Amino acid sequence: MSGNTFGHLFTVTNFGESHGPAIGCVIDGCPPGMELSEADIQGDLDRRRPGTSRHVTQRNEPDAVQILSGVYQGKTTGTPIALLIQNTDQRSKDYGNILETFRPGHADYTYFQKYGIRDPRGGGRSSARLTAPMVAAGAVAKKWLKEKFGTEFRGCMTQIGELPIAFESWDHVPHNPFFAPVADVQALEDYMDALRKAGDSCGARIRVSASNVPVGLGEPLFDKMDSDIAYAMMGINAVKGVEIGAGFGSVIQRGTTHGDSLTPNGFASNNAGGVLGGITTGQDLEVSIAIKPTSSIITPRDSIDVQGNATEVITKGRHDPCVGIRATPIAEAMLALVVMDHVLRHRAQCGDVVPALTPIAASI
Amino acid sequence: MSGNTFGHLFTVTNFGESHGPAIGCVIDGCPPGMELSEADIQGDLDRRRPGTSRHVTQRNEPDAVQILSGVYQGKTTGTPIALLIQNTDQRSKDYGNILETFRPGHADYTYFQKYGIRDPRGGGRSSARLTAPMVAAGAVAKKWLKEKFGTEFRGCMTQIGELPIAFESWDHVPHNPFFAPVADVQALEDYMDALRKAGDSCGARIRVSASNVPVGLGEPLFDKMDSDIAYAMMGINAVKGVEIGAGFGSVIQRGTTHGDSLTPNGFASNNAGGVLGGITTGQDLEVSIAIKPTSSIITPRDSIDVQGNATEVITKGRHDPCVGIRATPIAEAMLALVVMDHVLRHRAQCGDVVPALTPIAASI
Amino acid sequence: MSGNTFGHLFTVTNFGESHGPAIGCVIDGCPPGMELSEADIQGDLDRRRPGTSRHVTQRNEPDAVQILSGVYQGKTTGTPIALLIQNTDQRSKDYGNILETFRPGHADYTYFQKYGIRDPRGGGRSSARLTAPMVAAGAVAKKWLKEKFGTEFRGCMTQIGELPIAFESWDHVPHNPFFAPVADVQALEDYMDALRKAGDSCGARIRVSASNVPVGLGEPLFDKMDSDIAYAMMGINAVKGVEIGAGFGSVIQRGTTHGDSLTPNGFASNNAGGVLGGITTGQDLEVSIAIKPTSSIITPRDSIDVQGNATEVITKGRHDPCVGIRATPIAEAMLALVVMDHVLRHRAQCGDVVPALTPIAASI
Amino acid sequence: MSGNTFGHLFTVTNFGESHGPAIGCVIDGCPPGMELSEADIQGDLDRRRPGTSRHVTQRNEPDAVQILSGVYQGKTTGTPIALLIQNTDQRSKDYGNILETFRPGHADYTYFQKYGIRDPRGGGRSSARLTAPMVAAGAVAKKWLKEKFGTEFRGCMTQIGELPIAFESWDHVPHNPFFAPVADVQALEDYMDALRKAGDSCGARIRVSASNVPVGLGEPLFDKMDSDIAYAMMGINAVKGVEIGAGFGSVIQRGTTHGDSLTPNGFASNNAGGVLGGITTGQDLEVSIAIKPTSSIITPRDSIDVQGNATEVITKGRHDPCVGIRATPIAEAMLALVVMDHVLRHRAQCGDVVPALTPIAASI
Repeated sequence: MSGNTFGHLFTVTNFGESHGPAIGCVIDGCPPGMELSEADIQGDLDRRRPGTSRHVTQRNEPDAVQILSGVYQGKTTGTPIALLIQNTDQRSKDYGNILETFRPGHADYTYFQKYGIRDPRGGGRSSARLTAPMVAAGAVAKKWLKEKFGTEFRGCMTQIGELPIAFESWDHVPHNPFFAPVADVQALEDYMDALRKAGDSCGARIRVSASNVPVGLGEPLFDKMDSDIAYAMMGINAVKGVEIGAGFGSVIQRGTTHGDSLTPNGFASNNAGGVLGGITTGQDLEVSIAIKPTSSIITPRDSIDVQGNATEVITKGRHDPCVGIRATPIAEAMLALVVMDHVLRHRAQCGDVVPALTPIAASI
Repeated sequence: MSGNTFGHLFTVTNFGESHGPAIGCVIDGCPPGMELSEADIQGDLDRRRPGTSRHVTQRNEPDAVQILSGVYQGKTTGTPIALLIQNTDQRSKDYGNILETFRPGHADYTYFQKYGIRDPRGGGRSSARLTAPMVAAGAVAKKWLKEKFGTEFRGCMTQIGELPIAFESWDHVPHNPFFAPVADVQALEDYMDALRKAGDSCGARIRVSASNVPVGLGEPLFDKMDSDIAYAMMGINAVKGVEIGAGFGSVIQRGTTHGDSLTPNGFASNNAGGVLGGITTGQDLEVSIAIKPTSSIITPRDSIDVQGNATEVITKGRHDPCVGIRATPIAEAMLALVVMDHVLRHRAQCGDVVPALTPIAASI
Repeated sequence: MSGNTFGHLFTVTNFGESHGPAIGCVIDGCPPGMELSEADIQGDLDRRRPGTSRHVTQRNEPDAVQILSGVYQGKTTGTPIALLIQNTDQRSKDYGNILETFRPGHADYTYFQKYGIRDPRGGGRSSARLTAPMVAAGAVAKKWLKEKFGTEFRGCMTQIGELPIAFESWDHVPHNPFFAPVADVQALEDYMDALRKAGDSCGARIRVSASNVPVGLGEPLFDKMDSDIAYAMMGINAVKGVEIGAGFGSVIQRGTTHGDSLTPNGFASNNAGGVLGGITTGQDLEVSIAIKPTSSIITPRDSIDVQGNATEVITKGRHDPCVGIRATPIAEAMLALVVMDHVLRHRAQCGDVVPALTPIAASI
Repeated sequence: MSGNTFGHLFTVTNFGESHGPAIGCVIDGCPPGMELSEADIQGDLDRRRPGTSRHVTQRNEPDAVQILSGVYQGKTTGTPIALLIQNTDQRSKDYGNILETFRPGHADYTYFQKYGIRDPRGGGRSSARLTAPMVAAGAVAKKWLKEKFGTEFRGCMTQIGELPIAFESWDHVPHNPFFAPVADVQALEDYMDALRKAGDSCGARIRVSASNVPVGLGEPLFDKMDSDIAYAMMGINAVKGVEIGAGFGSVIQRGTTHGDSLTPNGFASNNAGGVLGGITTGQDLEVSIAIKPTSSIITPRDSIDVQGNATEVITKGRHDPCVGIRATPIAEAMLALVVMDHVLRHRAQCGDVVPALTPIAASI
């Protein structure tokens, strides 16, 4: 209830602070009998971890995951899977003055108001570092969904600051530090270099999608598939907007255009983004998110101190100038966790899961 | 778990179908001792109900609410408040052919795939009619929050189809059928008349906001205030996108611009939309949602029947050509339910609630 | 969270007060496709309803149930099933003086302390009348479990006051007002007549059991099958003790006796009561509960009034002199709801349910 | 939902296996600002840990607890408190043959049926070792409740096997290995020595109580204080029965006796065990539990192997001959967790908590 457990049937309870001894999570509800080792999880953690290019924070964290429970002789047993990631490169002195002031755009002020106390070291609990355990948990969900239904999760950056990034191919995504679906990222490199030199930060837009999603997932009224996706995405640090399918573009569509026609061979389009009435159609889930510019910048900002007096704040320490750059694997993981949860929920009430099918008629 | 209960501590369990005998909800967790009668609820139901202008469905439903429990001698007792709304103007024959075919853009197909059975009368459970009990429950939350903290919820239409609607004043909103914040709605009337004549439907964009929101509400990791708002909004029928504060506009903002400066007299701007790190700042909550065009239109569409054969579908019956028109009171209610839930959650862990304050310093 | 929803995946949200206009519940999570009508539910309600013998309250309530939603053309659709029971024989004046005083052994005092307000009419929310919706919901669970697995629920009275009731046969249970498993209930009739004449009340012990329970139900650590049974039973009005299998008798058993031997043809005994490590063995679930004497009696009792002054309280109105007499169908219903919930939980994580089997070897 | 998280608002997510690398838990919902260090927790762990007398398992585990998160500069921050306890004295070879057979009275069979896989090392997840993290979490709850309301939790053994243990004084409890409230435990020592020599095990009865419990805690219908206590107690390994107050003794009480009279100075008796209508009265909570004899004994037992063939099972390894001996601190911890959770739940809906008061009139 205090907002540190994600999911309903496939739950992930997250703990830790950016500069504490360790972070981690407990996964509960994982079906028994799946082969699982640290290696299955480490890959996605490596995609997310800091220090991998000059465009992200230079904090050096191996983010090596350890499985503490729930696996016996290489297989999940159905009991909780505890994952532990040690923090190794904390430099809390970087943050010395933050305790007395509030950084504009940052959670400092709200944590202080909520709890009357806060752990200021690296943002404490509000740090994006806490997405690492979610990426780890997401890797477990991805593996199970892949094996069961062939479901796959992919993401890419579609805009950075003012620069839209045209989609060329998923193949390019792993080959540049931006998760950009383009062959040539020189413009992006230049953009980021200029930004960093200016002591400023920028936003980004990320697309994330899932294919081979079983049909019929999602609950009709409140825990709609798209509701739960919106909840998951908006919960990622710095996200300020979420779209499903045509998203805000649907405002100017007509009903004759927006509604995806059905044919004996499947849907003719995907304005729905894979969800109708909150329930998956079996088409690809298509999600787009807006990420705000990082609030921790070295340019001085007007603010107040804890006594309410006017002051100026400069944020030192090591920060991502565009948190969107590392957001892609996070968004994939959160989408996987939502789908996984809904598979289990669907099984509970309906007892079986119908894989996505083309042509549609085959499932009828 | 089957997605018919909204909220965690102030819960609303919704039941009913569009064309069944009645719809309603059970509110659990309402604090005791608040004065409450049907009249406190009916006002918002009247704002949402159908048949009030030529631009919405002509179904004639009084939507009169009855309190079945939880109130004694005009005050809430702390026990469940059951609300009942009779359905009076069902015309199920209007929907005769729907059971054999799937309407493009509609939940027909996904319900059929999920459950293997569906109630086709008026969309059954997927009908936007089921937002009525939420509006009723929202009225209870609004009343309590107003009395406790002076919190107020307002909404308006900011775009219909291709027509943006410039904000003039909240005062205009109650005086036109569009919830438009403008004095002159002739252009909107003309737009809708042409659309209806064309047998088509259109989308809309709605803004909803809350003022005098206590500071410190929301949980830090998953049940962030903005996550829960996104979840609530995306769960409203036909919503395809949600923004908080600067929303997708934050993608092209710089950190030096986006982060709202703090001053001894309060925040200097509100790009955050009232939420930092998932927790309320005490500023106005600012939310914007995209609503897709109605899928039930009389223009013929390509589709399939339940055997998977190609067919053409025309949706008769009485439908809103722009479901966004009646969405404003619904979005307000959902926002009120989210805030209410978080007030109770905050009280549980932190024991008190800090009202929104200006200047900020006063609460420190 | 305010304690009016029972279950996790097959949930029952209960509402109403003893003397309000109506009581009822919303069942969520019922699998789709089951045939269901009011007649399937009314039978158990009739077994529980008041006024059927001189040994129970003379309040005359038909307890006729109405299905408001969730059923289309005689089948469950997977959406919420709302059940409504009108109150018809309230006589609130019987309770006139209760508002100013606290009845010993009754919830008057604690409700007043908790909420600062209470509905005193017939005990309001604390009335055992609120078990009626649970019996109705239990009938839905019983039907599904019977059809799926042949699971059956039975209960009987095993002691009333000082009189132990030896078990003769389940066949006798429906043929006397006590749910006693004996042919001759004259001693029980005489006992109750004398008690009523004395203006006093007595306790009872009830046994409830389930046969053909699938093996493997229940969660290992906290939501054990026996934990959830204990929770459900202790929640029934007036219950003060719960035993599973050998229960308190196991204190004086040795390990060599208590542990039920396994043989190729099944377990050799059932000290476990059908649960090992919190998970069902496939044997009969065996539960025993202690019910305290009714607190509403006409003999004067020492108490205080709402100002804290000493006073004497006599409870008029119509009350059961032994609430245990009508407890059997209630306990059956609660057990059915627990089993039903765990079937769905098991399906979620493990994907299938293994029916109870004899010989055991067949399932291995 | 998979039963590894305890509580609703003060939640404890438990993980680990008896012979894995570590066990632990994540506490969520702890109010901020309480001083907390490992030393506050270690005391109760030491009371529960094995190897402290010849009457319990000789496994040597220091059970040293480490706080991984949620505490900054010695105070709770309101974020999750992760607690880790390393396993140090596993001897998995002791359990070599268990994987092929099922021990009578043990969870082997049911885990195998549920999951199709189990971790047999020391009982894996079904081991009573997993109560250690609950004792740790309970210590956190105890500390907070003590500081806020002066609430205290105490327990003692009231029967071991056939030997009832008369209550002399709470003062004796810490001075013998049985948690017996008597000065002279020679009879208990002799009893246990004989039992161990016989290669057998025995049951026990434990009393646990709480004083200075706030009045008004507990929810009226399902999450009654006594329901939740029954749930918590029945979830402790080997518990087969739970009583509140007069418990099964209330069956033979009359209403004129059972109902506790109220006087201007408080209740005249406590048959209720501190709960009326599911809500605390402010009197002491009084709970009694039955613990079955340990199923792991060295006397051969009839059983079957995983192929369903008849076999004989002897359980080697290190086991408690009476698990009841170490159950007292566990039962105290679970009771503390239930009370803690209900304090937070009460605060959510009612906004304040009324401490227990004598005379009662003072709170009215």
